Amino acid sequence: MSLDPAIAARLKRTLNGLIPAIVQQHDTGEVLMLAWMDDEALSRTLTTGRATYWSRSRQDYWVKGQTSGHRQWVKEVRLDCDGDALLVKVDQEGAACHTGDRTCFDADLLS
Amino acid sequence: MSLDPAIAARLKRTLNGLIPAIVQQHDTGEVLMLAWMDDEALSRTLTTGRATYWSRSRQDYWVKGQTSGHRQWVKEVRLDCDGDALLVKVDQEGAACHTGDRTCFDADLLS
Repeated sequence: MSLDPAIAARLKRTLNGLIPAIVQQHDTGEVLMLAWMDDEALSRTLTTGRATYWSRSRQDYWVKGQTSGHRQWVKEVRLDCDGDALLVKVDQEGAACHTGDRTCFDADLLS
Repeated sequence: MSLDPAIAARLKRTLNGLIPAIVQQHDTGEVLMLAWMDDEALSRTLTTGRATYWSRSRQDYWVKGQTSGHRQWVKEVRLDCDGDALLVKVDQEGAACHTGDRTCFDADLLS
């Protein structure tokens, strides 16, 4: 699966070929998590409608919810003005965070 | 200005010492932009209440709105479960994007 060249040409990737993807619940506006995509993960996300990321720790693709069941159904994907960040609006099943929290930002408020 | 060591110990930075910061309008939930912080930028953000980032292109600190007037007043800052992403909830004056759009994600919907 390869990414649409017209999209690929607009992406500005980090040195390791990745782009940060902000994941947001489409209706409530909650920011659920931040993940990373390479071109292949973005292509899979756009074509399958299931949010797919690149896991930096496992160095492999990761279809969100494939093991946990906490799937993310993609509503839309947006690229920012500089081409170096993605906003992925999803419908999140259950908890987005592996800790069981609804979002990965629930637990740690800095003061 | 130095960052609280208890916070600094929880951060997992990229190879260039930065952490991606998702910037969200605190009341509407709009995702405004993605920016980057190092320890110093985070410390300044927490202590001054004005969102302050590290500009990778200019290699300098950047107080959002200092030249444009489109300031970001910080309501809260959250660290994610892995310590490698920040969520900065702000009250945005005017447009967040340098293009004049309200958010940096308004213009480019991928299909």
